[in-house]
Amino acid sequence: MVTPPLIVLCSDFGGGPFVGLMKGVILGICPQALLVDLAHDIPPQDVRAGALVLEQALSVFPAGTIHLAVVDPGVGGQRRAILVEALNQFFVGPDNGIFTPVLLADSQARVWELNNPAFFRHPLSATFHGRDIFAPVAAHLAWGLSPGELGSPAREPVLLDWPLPFRRGDTLVGQVLGADRFGNLQTNLSRAQVEGFLAGRPAQVSLAGLVVKGLSQTYAQAAPGGLVALFNSLDRLELAQNLGDARRAMGLEAGRELGLEVVVAALA
Amino acid sequence: MVTPPLIVLCSDFGGGPFVGLMKGVILGICPQALLVDLAHDIPPQDVRAGALVLEQALSVFPAGTIHLAVVDPGVGGQRRAILVEALNQFFVGPDNGIFTPVLLADSQARVWELNNPAFFRHPLSATFHGRDIFAPVAAHLAWGLSPGELGSPAREPVLLDWPLPFRRGDTLVGQVLGADRFGNLQTNLSRAQVEGFLAGRPAQVSLAGLVVKGLSQTYAQAAPGGLVALFNSLDRLELAQNLGDARRAMGLEAGRELGLEVVVAALA
Amino acid sequence: MVTPPLIVLCSDFGGGPFVGLMKGVILGICPQALLVDLAHDIPPQDVRAGALVLEQALSVFPAGTIHLAVVDPGVGGQRRAILVEALNQFFVGPDNGIFTPVLLADSQARVWELNNPAFFRHPLSATFHGRDIFAPVAAHLAWGLSPGELGSPAREPVLLDWPLPFRRGDTLVGQVLGADRFGNLQTNLSRAQVEGFLAGRPAQVSLAGLVVKGLSQTYAQAAPGGLVALFNSLDRLELAQNLGDARRAMGLEAGRELGLEVVVAALA
Repeated sequence: MVTPPLIVLCSDFGGGPFVGLMKGVILGICPQALLVDLAHDIPPQDVRAGALVLEQALSVFPAGTIHLAVVDPGVGGQRRAILVEALNQFFVGPDNGIFTPVLLADSQARVWELNNPAFFRHPLSATFHGRDIFAPVAAHLAWGLSPGELGSPAREPVLLDWPLPFRRGDTLVGQVLGADRFGNLQTNLSRAQVEGFLAGRPAQVSLAGLVVKGLSQTYAQAAPGGLVALFNSLDRLELAQNLGDARRAMGLEAGRELGLEVVVAALA
Repeated sequence: MVTPPLIVLCSDFGGGPFVGLMKGVILGICPQALLVDLAHDIPPQDVRAGALVLEQALSVFPAGTIHLAVVDPGVGGQRRAILVEALNQFFVGPDNGIFTPVLLADSQARVWELNNPAFFRHPLSATFHGRDIFAPVAAHLAWGLSPGELGSPAREPVLLDWPLPFRRGDTLVGQVLGADRFGNLQTNLSRAQVEGFLAGRPAQVSLAGLVVKGLSQTYAQAAPGGLVALFNSLDRLELAQNLGDARRAMGLEAGRELGLEVVVAALA
Repeated sequence: MVTPPLIVLCSDFGGGPFVGLMKGVILGICPQALLVDLAHDIPPQDVRAGALVLEQALSVFPAGTIHLAVVDPGVGGQRRAILVEALNQFFVGPDNGIFTPVLLADSQARVWELNNPAFFRHPLSATFHGRDIFAPVAAHLAWGLSPGELGSPAREPVLLDWPLPFRRGDTLVGQVLGADRFGNLQTNLSRAQVEGFLAGRPAQVSLAGLVVKGLSQTYAQAAPGGLVALFNSLDRLELAQNLGDARRAMGLEAGRELGLEVVVAALA
């Protein structure tokens, strides 16, 4: 059986018609494409949030997947439109840093600038390149064209400043990257980093004046309402409240958790 | 023509990436699966709300449909992962009562515990069994494996306390199960129960001190803004406001309508 | 390769199960149908908003597409169920004006009343014709039946009052039709109308006491936070704020922008 080409869509377009319009353009070019929505509830114009969502998808979709990622505050301006081939997958979208985790994860990543208007939709609007550039290019790629036919090799794609954990005295310091729908706080600390730092010692995790002792395997290891630190489904350290909302429990307004320092120490 | 296997997804994951990640896992295992979203806006961790949504789907999807239902507050804890075969359909998810209406509707339902890690995604996280257990098992089922290959026969699946209507004096008493997007109040009273009780007499329906006389066929039978009692698309008694929002009209805060008593009497 | 029949769904059903239930009905009848969501976040019972969303889709989907549009406040009442063939596409839904832009765009549009219960789902509910009439009819159409088999030729479909721009003195007057997720204000003024009126003169656009001088190509032509007037992806005049939310910047509450007068004049 021939596997149909898979296009995964990610945007800040919410529930409105923009996503459906991109799909209409794709299916007009490549009717056999299989379309999957990754997330469209990224806060408007929040490129970093889009990058964090893409990062979660890197290990999940099969080889050959085409990711169409449109969080594009600079649409119609000077920013380039690009195609990235990395990790045996393809990524189509604006060159504004949204592909930062992809580019950091694969030093062999290749980049093309999408500058061949033969593969754009016309008339080309200045405000909706998702429909007029990214969707048709992704569809032509799904249809079988090669990156080199769709654009020209390009260099120095835009990279966001991407916070990395660091050591401070006898602690490991990371950051909160955001909260999910359940109020669980995601950090940039990986299991490998934390376990390497602890070297078998029990952990103490501090965040905003609050201390959690020990690492849990599951939410349910705490009493209902209790806070836990555990490695989440991305193998990243996460602060959560069993059967509750950790962000709310800590009195954090939505969005204010971003960048908060998370300090891991060894329990004395 | 061969019909592609149909997987229907239902969760409390909202608009974020969790649903898309489950789909990525499924398509990596069974690319020909047809994926349909039932609902992902179930309130976080509200197993009963998930069960009510599943109930609506039972009569709609074709035989052989695989339902993947993930409302899973106990993820990573002691709760079992199960597969239910009932009503000529399959149901994959946590054993926490979410399949109560399925199990009540089919006394021949069969249950397996999903305890064969060969069909899980690895590394297995403790926090996202939707991606790591339920999605891959549903995909293997879609691909053609049998329930007996995916798990072991199991007994006594968890059942939620499921409110049933009862008689009180010369009235029939039911409960409000929830409100839909339009503010229509759904009850647990079926057309058969109400019509059997009334035996041809005209009805009077009371809820929270408010009385509606007679049963309507359509919303439009009331004047704009008027309240109606009618049988909805599930053949359940529903209280609605023509061109309005019954829950709001009755001064009920969202979520506070649950469990309210609905009393049906014969009009004197 | 045979292209699968494409059904595009549009409704005011939000994130709940109604959309999934319609899909279940469709796939039970026509398993090879390809289903795409256009938008389901139309405000409840807002037929005009549904019509505006449909209008955006007219130029995007391939010939033969079947649109299933369900914003249906009169469900179960006297309103007809109809099928429209126009612009080489099909439109299935209630006869309440939701197809106004389709009917205005194609003077050769043909209309059928869906009055053949053989193609309905039974028992037919009085409250969910999306599931019981429109979805099964769309599925039978996708499966290959002709409009004439599904209904009878009909006349005088309902048309909404559809505001058209007009001249007043030496100005061109249009209306705001709504705001998108980003707070960009959409008007009913087309590029052709505005450019014809200006005849090469520079423009001044006024809205709610505010004046924007000149037309931009892109959002980024204004400084961050600056207002721009430009032609959007529908080639309609749009008022936007670069990297911001124009509706909020102008102090307009959501929904209050509808019908606001937009006045285009030539810059002195």
